[in-house]
Amino acid sequence: MNPHLVSISPSVIRALNDRKKEGAIDLGMGQPVLKPELYPLVRAIAWVEEHGCPYSPNAGFLELRSAIARHFQYPYLSEPGTVCVTVGSQEALYLTVQGLLDPATDEALVVTPTFPAYQKLCHMLGVSAREVALSPESGFAADAERVLAAVGPRTRLIALASPCNPTGRVWPEAELRRLTEGLAALPEPVYLLSDEVYSELYFGPERPASPASFYRHTLVAGSLSKSCALTGLRLGWLMAPIELSPTLLKAHQLVASCADTIAQRAAIEIFKAPELLAAHRDHYRAQHAALVEALGAEGLEYIAPEGSFYCLLRVPEPWTHDPMAAALQLMDRHNVVTIPSSVFGAEGFLRLSFVAAPELLREGIRRIAAFFREPGREPGREPGREPG
Amino acid sequence: MNPHLVSISPSVIRALNDRKKEGAIDLGMGQPVLKPELYPLVRAIAWVEEHGCPYSPNAGFLELRSAIARHFQYPYLSEPGTVCVTVGSQEALYLTVQGLLDPATDEALVVTPTFPAYQKLCHMLGVSAREVALSPESGFAADAERVLAAVGPRTRLIALASPCNPTGRVWPEAELRRLTEGLAALPEPVYLLSDEVYSELYFGPERPASPASFYRHTLVAGSLSKSCALTGLRLGWLMAPIELSPTLLKAHQLVASCADTIAQRAAIEIFKAPELLAAHRDHYRAQHAALVEALGAEGLEYIAPEGSFYCLLRVPEPWTHDPMAAALQLMDRHNVVTIPSSVFGAEGFLRLSFVAAPELLREGIRRIAAFFREPGREPGREPGREPG
Repeated sequence: MNPHLVSISPSVIRALNDRKKEGAIDLGMGQPVLKPELYPLVRAIAWVEEHGCPYSPNAGFLELRSAIARHFQYPYLSEPGTVCVTVGSQEALYLTVQGLLDPATDEALVVTPTFPAYQKLCHMLGVSAREVALSPESGFAADAERVLAAVGPRTRLIALASPCNPTGRVWPEAELRRLTEGLAALPEPVYLLSDEVYSELYFGPERPASPASFYRHTLVAGSLSKSCALTGLRLGWLMAPIELSPTLLKAHQLVASCADTIAQRAAIEIFKAPELLAAHRDHYRAQHAALVEALGAEGLEYIAPEGSFYCLLRVPEPWTHDPMAAALQLMDRHNVVTIPSSVFGAEGFLRLSFVAAPELLREGIRRIAAFFREPGREPGREPGREPG
Repeated sequence: MNPHLVSISPSVIRALNDRKKEGAIDLGMGQPVLKPELYPLVRAIAWVEEHGCPYSPNAGFLELRSAIARHFQYPYLSEPGTVCVTVGSQEALYLTVQGLLDPATDEALVVTPTFPAYQKLCHMLGVSAREVALSPESGFAADAERVLAAVGPRTRLIALASPCNPTGRVWPEAELRRLTEGLAALPEPVYLLSDEVYSELYFGPERPASPASFYRHTLVAGSLSKSCALTGLRLGWLMAPIELSPTLLKAHQLVASCADTIAQRAAIEIFKAPELLAAHRDHYRAQHAALVEALGAEGLEYIAPEGSFYCLLRVPEPWTHDPMAAALQLMDRHNVVTIPSSVFGAEGFLRLSFVAAPELLREGIRRIAAFFREPGREPGREPGREPG
């Protein structure tokens, strides 16, 4: 067996999800409960009725790659040749690590707290990964100076998510510019992987900025999963500077050949009517309002989310240093699923996903608050943590 | 960039396909021209209408994994836990190399001629791969003794396809038993990756045997792509001994999360009516008959295929040592797409895919025969070969 893979612990998120009991209030997985718009799928099947279900070109149907490039208007990623259609954004992250980094010499820097896939991918592929942690005292606010200070001579990639899973924080444009100006001053290119899977789900007046708007060495991972309630469609994309495309494409061919033709035809329909990408935003804004109201009513401390559908809830003593124990107690005794922040590289919080119906969200938060008020419970044995 | 990936030459099959002119007779890519049965797709969309489009469990919907295990009845792969639903069989091959082999110590042995993905995957992941070539004199017939003689102390995996792309040859059960009995006598387990993507397409009276029927250390890669004209659906599976499953699943999570929900729901419908898996067999038998008749009528030499939809055509002098030059001349001057056998690790042949309509098949073969009869042409410069 591959020892790198053997040593990666299984997904705690999936393990907690598998342990979920009937009737649980699920504030765990980031799985939209909305139904997707159906007509793009129906039209995709009509296309197959007419054309059969052939492979697409490896990088995806040209029509889709053009539509994606046109939609985002990133100055250095404006050609269809910069777009590879992937099996969700997960494959886009994989291609970046597999294709961009030389395990013998290169290192990735991962801005945490974050979704643990970047580090696990590096570990699987034998690539060094270091973390640079944003400060819990600042509410995990964007901090260009801290990230720049962590860049080393071997750093070739920085992975950054905005809006961020699990913090819900957004990097303001000014801070992104500070970061990329610092990177641009380095002697060798340091690529920035901008994970934008939550870019449609934001609560302020302005769309989150992308470093791809002004930094040449940016790769963008995106997908229809979260914006369109299509997690199961596995339709994502990796946009990358054109000089990287041939190498990334070889990895894509070897791992998947091409993305699903039906999913791609559906995506073509969605990009023809791009208001579909924003159609669920108001729903999540209402969810966000319901969450904040419920947390406030219970007097709970949390990091105020600016996007995504996650919120970090501060856990009080005696759970502060063992959020996993708190999550297990909540699951087993109160039937509420939450995810300990240790999974994402931070202590002291539980991640709440706020996709559930508002009445469930309120009831879940009520139970959590009641649990936190219970006197004198000791944290139990901790069954496992994500690595790094 | 990752130097392993950079050094892999791009797919010659795709490159030749991209060079194809309008109106070309395509005997190149293995892309069925049949239309797929539509109702499984329609029912999949109806399922999404009712349930939304959520992630499936990482390894796939339990209902589908159970159906696949039940359908094949392999004694050591009878539990749903041995099945992982993948992004076509390409991802199944990737998972095998990524998960099973330790780049520091293990080696894969690839039985050639064959589809070049196994070696390229090894190369991408830094795993040693050696080839063991079947003999062109025997028509690339199965040869257990030759494969066993090539097994070395570091060999942990043997990749074998039956029916084989590009030879169309099938390993008879007796020869597979000879191979696996030899492997079973080795001090450490040597795993056999049985690539069975063409197992539904055979021309003799009997279904090709699988080593999974009698050898415990067998992994099976399969898909709906070829049997059901669903190459674009990207729905495959990897069946693996249960002790390997947790590690393979971690690689699957990191590269794809899970296979497409719509594709999986369609696959559930197909396995409910398994006659759909065999529905195109008679079509390919008729295609095979038309091919053999046309080749005979032109007096061309070929390896008689027993399955798949490929046939190796022997190229005469002066092309014998440069089938790529012959393929390029055929493409550029006669508008017929063929694939040189050098891509698959053999000299002296062109691979013909016989998915095209019979009249096109006959016209293509007529043009090839006329080209071979042309006097005194020199092979041109060869633009590229697949590695190893």
